[in-house]
Amino acid sequence: MRALVFQSGKAAVRDVRRPAPRKGFALVRVLLSGICNTDLELKRGYHAFSGIPGHEFVGVVEGPESSPLLGKRVVGEINLACGRCSWCAEGLGRHCPRRLVLGIRGHAGAHAEWLTLPEANLFEVPPGVSDEEAVFVEPLAAACEILDQVAVAPGTRAAVLGPGKLGRLVAEVLLSADADVELLGRSSRARVASFDLVVEATGSPAGMPRALALVRPRGTIVWKSTHHAPARFDAAPLVVNEVTVVGSRCGRFEPALEFLRMRRVDVRSLLSSVFPLRDAVRALREAARPGVLKVLLRP
Amino acid sequence: MRALVFQSGKAAVRDVRRPAPRKGFALVRVLLSGICNTDLELKRGYHAFSGIPGHEFVGVVEGPESSPLLGKRVVGEINLACGRCSWCAEGLGRHCPRRLVLGIRGHAGAHAEWLTLPEANLFEVPPGVSDEEAVFVEPLAAACEILDQVAVAPGTRAAVLGPGKLGRLVAEVLLSADADVELLGRSSRARVASFDLVVEATGSPAGMPRALALVRPRGTIVWKSTHHAPARFDAAPLVVNEVTVVGSRCGRFEPALEFLRMRRVDVRSLLSSVFPLRDAVRALREAARPGVLKVLLRP
Repeated sequence: MRALVFQSGKAAVRDVRRPAPRKGFALVRVLLSGICNTDLELKRGYHAFSGIPGHEFVGVVEGPESSPLLGKRVVGEINLACGRCSWCAEGLGRHCPRRLVLGIRGHAGAHAEWLTLPEANLFEVPPGVSDEEAVFVEPLAAACEILDQVAVAPGTRAAVLGPGKLGRLVAEVLLSADADVELLGRSSRARVASFDLVVEATGSPAGMPRALALVRPRGTIVWKSTHHAPARFDAAPLVVNEVTVVGSRCGRFEPALEFLRMRRVDVRSLLSSVFPLRDAVRALREAARPGVLKVLLRP
Repeated sequence: MRALVFQSGKAAVRDVRRPAPRKGFALVRVLLSGICNTDLELKRGYHAFSGIPGHEFVGVVEGPESSPLLGKRVVGEINLACGRCSWCAEGLGRHCPRRLVLGIRGHAGAHAEWLTLPEANLFEVPPGVSDEEAVFVEPLAAACEILDQVAVAPGTRAAVLGPGKLGRLVAEVLLSADADVELLGRSSRARVASFDLVVEATGSPAGMPRALALVRPRGTIVWKSTHHAPARFDAAPLVVNEVTVVGSRCGRFEPALEFLRMRRVDVRSLLSSVFPLRDAVRALREAARPGVLKVLLRP
């Protein structure tokens, strides 16, 4: 099959062997996959990654014959948990220490014609949700995760730093919870020490010092960015103002699918372009251009 | 009066004018003051401080004549809040943006024969608590603050990084809440990703990366250290493991006094030595030596 492959910092579209589903796994034919900033970081060396990247997708289950999802349109939870540890027992397989991660750690990803995932990871897409919307479920789940972690009430004064894909999804989700939301770019002005909640989604080490300047004493910063460079900031305001910083990553798929089904958020405005998978290298370059939002690949 | 004075990175004991209490303030004759690591940081240039340092003390109210606390033994809340802003209205004068801070910001400190503080900041010391114990109320309140911010239950697996004065107080307070507590020095071994709660009290930028290695996914780090050097660490584990970091500084005096009155913690083991105020410069050097715990000054 055709797939995008990262190796030693290089990206290329290659012909590789189609994956065979193990017991308990389904074979999924990919309809669309989404390029995430994490893919760009993986190419640069984050996680010392090599292989097929991609963890945002919508596809159709094509095997095994016995699968109850056969022929269904699905999206998939990206963490492959061991199913036997205390984390898995608590329903927190996303934090299982032995987990593999689709297109990130030890499991071939979605920028390909086919992928495999455990059947338990798959969620059927409701009929009213298009492929182009469904491919946003994974990043939308990451945005919804904030509502699982932090109290957001009507009138909560929230700033979202980083008007990229994730930042815009987060802003939509916070608006849906009736927060007052300001989506701030690098040059946007905002009053220091005035926000109850600041979401750091800049993807840059410069985000955290700015978040610390904007959050009020005893306020909360949600830290979404992972970047290859280390964080570096004056921690005194964090301690002195007793700020809470909450690391936030993947989220549950159920609320994200429900958001899309109920049309509580509009993800279509986040779509910049769709490239054929064979042009994935060009698509990566396009996705890395400033101001470009979601770039999709169609096998 | 005699006082320790910091100026341009130098420390000296000098004869200075005795402070006169303004309206609403009391004049306190200092019985004992405690040298805190913050004092050593102030000397090194933190906050661009100059003046009389010192914010841990026990003393006797000697004026004005009308004071209901006249002749009483007291300790004092170090934040001088404006009393009129929204923070003050919420009882959070410790975060008032216009506050002065005893011996730290804009108000002469406790390493002196006399000091002044608003009467509202003073707390009478119960008779069963000695001067040598009472002088620990301020750092003990900072340790107790953790119980106000974070859920600590019987069996909570807690690590305290930094076996200095604050670290030991924190360990005592967590033990009193029936947590399982390990107090860890720089070379102590501990299992990574195994603690529900890690308290970072090392006073060093090296503390945070270690805390991130020790805390379990979805666990909590309480960040107590303020240091002049910026924090620098790989933030990916914080985000990926969805760790919560809680900045923690000063605490309420009431629970700390109650801990001492009920003898729920033993602070006497933290006392290294008592110097006369006239030898304060020597006392500062002693307090900075590795392994030395609390050094007190007696005017």
